Amino acid sequence: MADGPLPSWQNTPTKQAIIAFVEDVTDPKSPNFVPVPERIATFDNDGTLWAEQPMYAQLFFAIDRLKALAPKHPEWKQQEPFKSILNGDLKGAATAEGKKALIELVMATHAGMTSEDFSNIVKEWIATAKHPTTGRPFTKMVYQPMLELLTYLRANGFKTFIVSGGGIAFMRPWTEQVYGIPPEQVVGSSVKTQYKVMNGQPVIVREAAINFIDDKAGKPVGINQHIGRQPIAAFGNSDGDLEMLQWTTSGKGKRFGLLVHHTDAKREWAYDRKSTFGHLDKALDMATKQGWTVVDMKSDWKTIYPDF
Amino acid sequence: MADGPLPSWQNTPTKQAIIAFVEDVTDPKSPNFVPVPERIATFDNDGTLWAEQPMYAQLFFAIDRLKALAPKHPEWKQQEPFKSILNGDLKGAATAEGKKALIELVMATHAGMTSEDFSNIVKEWIATAKHPTTGRPFTKMVYQPMLELLTYLRANGFKTFIVSGGGIAFMRPWTEQVYGIPPEQVVGSSVKTQYKVMNGQPVIVREAAINFIDDKAGKPVGINQHIGRQPIAAFGNSDGDLEMLQWTTSGKGKRFGLLVHHTDAKREWAYDRKSTFGHLDKALDMATKQGWTVVDMKSDWKTIYPDF
Repeated sequence: MADGPLPSWQNTPTKQAIIAFVEDVTDPKSPNFVPVPERIATFDNDGTLWAEQPMYAQLFFAIDRLKALAPKHPEWKQQEPFKSILNGDLKGAATAEGKKALIELVMATHAGMTSEDFSNIVKEWIATAKHPTTGRPFTKMVYQPMLELLTYLRANGFKTFIVSGGGIAFMRPWTEQVYGIPPEQVVGSSVKTQYKVMNGQPVIVREAAINFIDDKAGKPVGINQHIGRQPIAAFGNSDGDLEMLQWTTSGKGKRFGLLVHHTDAKREWAYDRKSTFGHLDKALDMATKQGWTVVDMKSDWKTIYPDF
Repeated sequence: MADGPLPSWQNTPTKQAIIAFVEDVTDPKSPNFVPVPERIATFDNDGTLWAEQPMYAQLFFAIDRLKALAPKHPEWKQQEPFKSILNGDLKGAATAEGKKALIELVMATHAGMTSEDFSNIVKEWIATAKHPTTGRPFTKMVYQPMLELLTYLRANGFKTFIVSGGGIAFMRPWTEQVYGIPPEQVVGSSVKTQYKVMNGQPVIVREAAINFIDDKAGKPVGINQHIGRQPIAAFGNSDGDLEMLQWTTSGKGKRFGLLVHHTDAKREWAYDRKSTFGHLDKALDMATKQGWTVVDMKSDWKTIYPDF
């Protein structure tokens, strides 16, 4: 490639820092050389690999599911948070009280079916749903520079993982096609599941109970549980990623931490310390102290989204 | 290779069934062709990849740990199950009441430290401990025919996973070297963990509480959680593997289930329906009905252990 490995990245210190890290740890003559099996890189999803404004894609999914299921649940017309959500009043979902509402919404729409049925529902939704302000399919709300970064890392022997607060079962049906990340390399939040034989057919049933929240201090726990080794590079964009970056960059040898800072109100959204979705405050302060690389989306990225 | 891909397997219907399956699902012209990313194979560990008699290797480890820790715990001299175990009376561990004792033993020896410290303890033990009757290192109590099977499957585009009732953190420090299976492809039982910053150093702390038991109906649940897709081939040896084989072989398309039947009292051990470790009863009955392949260790395997 005439433009080198990251064509959608401006030739700024950010891009240079990424390339310098990769060239160093993959150089057998470098004191910082890392063998291929240990080249583990973890990526947050919402706000890091794809857009998270005006709210998480999974929340659009949950609301669409709620509407689809509403005819079978006439009681929801009188019952909060369903009543407000069905009436298009979403303010609650973004408040502190909304956190409880959010869990109720997820449980009502993400459980009570087999894992295979849920996967098919997600596949159908992701193939047809459109982002409300851009009109793009959600799978085209991914960041072109980050797709190139995933490819570049894999070309250099890295194994790339998603480590997201989002639902593991919501991501797995499409991450392989969109990011080149197979289901077994996706770590996320989950509901409890049970193995059952129903009418002679073995199935995994999704229950309306939280199993694991893969956010904040849950991210290193989830990584340790799923991957079993400390990443050497971690990529995030919010305070939810603080512990993942902290743990990753505290390890022995050369490490790399990166935060995507949403600074581009024109081409995407500009937000950080005051945002509900993708709240970035403490981690931004910590970045300087810890030597984490911060992407200034406005000046570091030539393009935001892929063509479609 | 002059002997073909599985040189330590006798040329019996068992070997032929394995090869016929692999050749079928990897043949692009076959109606049963499976694309590479979906070629997921899961293996039980104890009794399937390595020996589990006279008891699980992890139990030897736990007892060695208990002895090493005993000087710091004088109260154990008066406290069951520690008192009996330290006195060499292990009968309890093999009884129903022993199940509670087993959990207490594991909690006393596998928790209360960081994940990194535990990993180092396991590495030190596995490098030095010897099997009590054969005198072999435990890593040489693995089955040569199964090592060849792992290699053969990987050479045919399969991704191989361990799915064991044993501790995930007990296996991960050595599975890559011994089986060629990296930590992120090991699924097992686990204790609860927490992320903490101790003296400025981020760590994962192991707590004395069960997080997940990856056995029986827990195996499909663990596979769904870690891998996120149904295997097309599963390999086990006991009733603890029944649900894993049942779920795997119930999937659409061509599937393969295999049980290792320990029939070789001379070269290994002969046991099934009456054994505490590796209890094989219902799954053996089910094998015929479900079309699972059963390895007769005595007649199907030319050699049992690798040279060392």
